[in-house]
Amino acid sequence: MRTFKMVVSYDGTDFAGFQRQTNARTVQQVLEEALATIEGCDVTLAGAGRTDSGAHAAAQVVSFSLENPISASDLKQAMNFALNVAGAFDLRALSVRDAPSNFNARFAARGKLYRYRIANTDIMSPFERRFAWHVPRPLDLDAMVEAAAAIVGEHDFAAFQSAGATVRTTVRTIWSAEWSVIRMEPTDSDLRLDPPERMLMFDVSGSGFLKYMVRAIVGTLVEIGAGRRSAASMRDLLDGRTRAAAGPTAPAHGLCLMRVDYDEPGPVSC
Amino acid sequence: MRTFKMVVSYDGTDFAGFQRQTNARTVQQVLEEALATIEGCDVTLAGAGRTDSGAHAAAQVVSFSLENPISASDLKQAMNFALNVAGAFDLRALSVRDAPSNFNARFAARGKLYRYRIANTDIMSPFERRFAWHVPRPLDLDAMVEAAAAIVGEHDFAAFQSAGATVRTTVRTIWSAEWSVIRMEPTDSDLRLDPPERMLMFDVSGSGFLKYMVRAIVGTLVEIGAGRRSAASMRDLLDGRTRAAAGPTAPAHGLCLMRVDYDEPGPVSC
Repeated sequence: MRTFKMVVSYDGTDFAGFQRQTNARTVQQVLEEALATIEGCDVTLAGAGRTDSGAHAAAQVVSFSLENPISASDLKQAMNFALNVAGAFDLRALSVRDAPSNFNARFAARGKLYRYRIANTDIMSPFERRFAWHVPRPLDLDAMVEAAAAIVGEHDFAAFQSAGATVRTTVRTIWSAEWSVIRMEPTDSDLRLDPPERMLMFDVSGSGFLKYMVRAIVGTLVEIGAGRRSAASMRDLLDGRTRAAAGPTAPAHGLCLMRVDYDEPGPVSC
Repeated sequence: MRTFKMVVSYDGTDFAGFQRQTNARTVQQVLEEALATIEGCDVTLAGAGRTDSGAHAAAQVVSFSLENPISASDLKQAMNFALNVAGAFDLRALSVRDAPSNFNARFAARGKLYRYRIANTDIMSPFERRFAWHVPRPLDLDAMVEAAAAIVGEHDFAAFQSAGATVRTTVRTIWSAEWSVIRMEPTDSDLRLDPPERMLMFDVSGSGFLKYMVRAIVGTLVEIGAGRRSAASMRDLLDGRTRAAAGPTAPAHGLCLMRVDYDEPGPVSC
């Protein structure tokens, strides 16, 4: 048996998330079925991040072992061919490498970078509707930047995990949490928009994330941007550890797993 | 009756083109049905560009007249609401303005700007697959830039119209034809790609375009980029006026109508 590390990318719109389920199309299931056509028998893989239903990945990492003596570069081609046969053009293998026999993409991961995109525009672009949350109201980006800084470091994120979750510890370390802005030029010269149309991007990296954590943080930051909460309230929410006190969970389709880090712990560069 | 100029944007993937047809979902049909719910009876509209099945529009322009005394800004909101009710999130009204009673979006158009996008990458990104043509082979961009310059000016584009088309004249004036490049950063640090991944964008503006003209030009320019034709051959194709001598028609999903110009004739700025 040889073990492989494969980087995959997917448009999560038509997937019921990463993790295998009964009677739902998931990323894990489609990848395992493609691998089975190459190996000739069932293959089980491990994924670094169990992305939510509707969330995307620019570079998710999975690991698995095969008896097939195929080379890593041929395996990349064979995977994309098998995915084409399955009609899964929304899922691609970007790279495949040989890995140590004990490599597990989930347990070896040192950290992840997620990006959440918000279309802060009057009308939602048909081209962005699958990949960004549409928030038409004016947002105070300065307040959102200030509030985001409060989550950097080691904190108890119990206020930002999915309701009813049971994990051993809700303490996680966040390395960076930054907003960036892309000004969107109006395609129509008739449009003189005030405030201007823009895409807001929230990049957050850390050693680990609770279920729905990024989305709950973004939902809360947007309430801060809308003036419904103060920027200072972010610290109080962390201290209070109460999910109901924080903002709503932002929709999954704005979220994208950008990369998984397997080197020494430390900031993931964008 | 009052006449309106409306700018619309659409992801063309799930439309059988702009123009109304029997038994197919088209942009014109969905817009006219939305307008009918607002007006209370049938409405017929004129569109500036009859985009192909699968082609997109960042800013298509349509005109129509209503008895309804609704304001232009309320009409924009009502249109997007009616499109939501119809489940047409892939089609949006970006702006609506009052127009002179004799305004016709098709006949008043002075020029258009189209963009054709080519993903010149090893593996096609799941996020770009609906909006760009995947050309994995290396392309000589310098040759494509040189060849594109040959189409600027007034020329007979018979070699680049759809086979069997019957139009009065195949002479058209092109104002600009330019390639630009966006370097795509690998999302996976394992990837050291040579040549680097890139998005090639072909922006072409002019007073008018024959059916399939932009796509036939792009298909030919890609053959030049691939080394199958010389850059100088573009001029010979224009002189020869023979469709079969030119390259294949590039796929529709890479094409996007970027804007329509209603001012004095002249270059359309990007």
